[in-house]
Amino acid sequence: MTIPAPIGWTADQGVRILDQTLLPEEERYLDLDSVDAVAEAIRTLRVRGAPLIGIAAAMGLTLAARRSPASLEAVCAASAALGATRPTAVNLHWALARMERRAAAAAAAGEDLAEALRDEANAIWAEDRAMCARIGAAGAALIGGDALILTHCNAGALATGGIGTALAPVYTLHQAGRRVAVVADETRPLLQGSRLTAWELSRAGVPVTVIADGMAASRLRRGDVTCVIVGADRIAANGDVANKIGTYGVALAARAHGVPFYVAAPSSTVDPATPDGAHIPIEERAPDEVAGWRGHAAAPPEARVWNPAFDVTPAELVTAIITDRGVFAPEDVAPRAG
Amino acid sequence: MTIPAPIGWTADQGVRILDQTLLPEEERYLDLDSVDAVAEAIRTLRVRGAPLIGIAAAMGLTLAARRSPASLEAVCAASAALGATRPTAVNLHWALARMERRAAAAAAAGEDLAEALRDEANAIWAEDRAMCARIGAAGAALIGGDALILTHCNAGALATGGIGTALAPVYTLHQAGRRVAVVADETRPLLQGSRLTAWELSRAGVPVTVIADGMAASRLRRGDVTCVIVGADRIAANGDVANKIGTYGVALAARAHGVPFYVAAPSSTVDPATPDGAHIPIEERAPDEVAGWRGHAAAPPEARVWNPAFDVTPAELVTAIITDRGVFAPEDVAPRAG
Repeated sequence: MTIPAPIGWTADQGVRILDQTLLPEEERYLDLDSVDAVAEAIRTLRVRGAPLIGIAAAMGLTLAARRSPASLEAVCAASAALGATRPTAVNLHWALARMERRAAAAAAAGEDLAEALRDEANAIWAEDRAMCARIGAAGAALIGGDALILTHCNAGALATGGIGTALAPVYTLHQAGRRVAVVADETRPLLQGSRLTAWELSRAGVPVTVIADGMAASRLRRGDVTCVIVGADRIAANGDVANKIGTYGVALAARAHGVPFYVAAPSSTVDPATPDGAHIPIEERAPDEVAGWRGHAAAPPEARVWNPAFDVTPAELVTAIITDRGVFAPEDVAPRAG
Repeated sequence: MTIPAPIGWTADQGVRILDQTLLPEEERYLDLDSVDAVAEAIRTLRVRGAPLIGIAAAMGLTLAARRSPASLEAVCAASAALGATRPTAVNLHWALARMERRAAAAAAAGEDLAEALRDEANAIWAEDRAMCARIGAAGAALIGGDALILTHCNAGALATGGIGTALAPVYTLHQAGRRVAVVADETRPLLQGSRLTAWELSRAGVPVTVIADGMAASRLRRGDVTCVIVGADRIAANGDVANKIGTYGVALAARAHGVPFYVAAPSSTVDPATPDGAHIPIEERAPDEVAGWRGHAAAPPEARVWNPAFDVTPAELVTAIITDRGVFAPEDVAPRAG
């Protein structure tokens, strides 16, 4: 039993990804040889999860410098194309900005652009792995023993370059020999919980129970859930948390039943420039994610669909935020000015 | 634009049903000429919804008396077969017992058995239609004007012999010329919201927006929902309400945002013998309803599934209960002893 890896390099320095849209029915890896192919993979959620998107974009950007002569202009154009794929994802833009700075420095110093970018992408990946491990250690210490953990969506190994964010404490406790099990919300419309979280936990030997999203409140009432841990797509300066749609309802139910509600995320997810959740743009996705399923209509064509990809959980419902820098009360998570 | 009817008589006094398992992709009516065919339709959920199951069983029972010479024994055997299809459905057994009494009385009086049973089935159907209309009138008066109504599951025309229970106020307001629209939770795992509620409302010309269940809390926060109306499978003496799984989470979110949460149900749904929600048995259904979808795996085979069919919303989260006898505070819904 091992924790699956969703990304890697091919032998000829292309980008290999696990096509997450096909899980759990098929474990298919795709070798991507162009920026467009990587952008397509991000846009269509073959690669997803805020940290992994950043890594994938950084690795994808190296493909813009693979053809000689590599130009800084081509790298910047590719960065713009990759950045346009997912508007809410801050890690994506952070990773691309860092890669662009490295490209500019390499060009100014006359270094090999492709090699410099590969080094930087590998550094981003390694830092992400280390970040996950630190979140795992901090979360495991916070939980402190055997646990039944309810999670929403997938903030696991499949969402990062390491052992995940929300699932990092799960893996860390599991590897330390604690009895840890997970209740996974299936997470409609795209089923990242049943398809991805349940798949990677099963691969790693962690017992997992899948529930429909509407069952979470009843499960939290039952009294056997130790805590909720979810990831985050963006955390505002006041501690409000944007995460996968459905998170807010889970937070309300956790509060109603006195179950701790933890958010686990890299400190880079905290955006000091966003004062609160009302300032976080919420991506609306295509109706057919809700209205259809693998070619079958789940709703009549006359029906409208409202399909926000994220919701905002207010800071007052968040018990603590687990980051690679430690565990914070939500109001303390943003770095203070002065 | 008309409200669809899920049941009727054929020209030669067979039973015509709308096959609800095929919606929304196909609107197929089945002409059923035998008790066995009606039993199969109930067992496989082609006909569903507590009131409609009772009507369908009553109409189906008439088929046992269609062949001459009709015998009381044949009617009783047919009633047993129909009653075995959904052992926990209260309305089903109530309707069949009433039909058997009518058959016995007709046999004793030397009346035509087939005609007597058709009259009784039509009476059950007509009473259900009237019950729906009274709920619609009471709910419409309570809401009093234009409204955006959020609902969960399907407690509409497709679940009854009339205009539904939770949707009855919607149709009543719509027919009175009010601007009324519905937000329908898709209602995993069986999607009665997107497949059935959205279909029947669209047919009737009522604008409907489908959301995944996890979006309800965000929608209620948005501030444009007038009220929530849901049906009920059983209401305890203290006003606790058992309804389709997912209802409880919607009730918590409605409370958090000050949105009225109404339950609409026939007064026969109130069970004075059940003191509170803790005494309502919750059926757990098969794992594959959550783990699979039209032959596709949605979760890995190693994952467990928890699939309760219902949840309990405590009375303190219920603003009012709309019945055919009027509108009640939840603590007043059960008839008082003495």
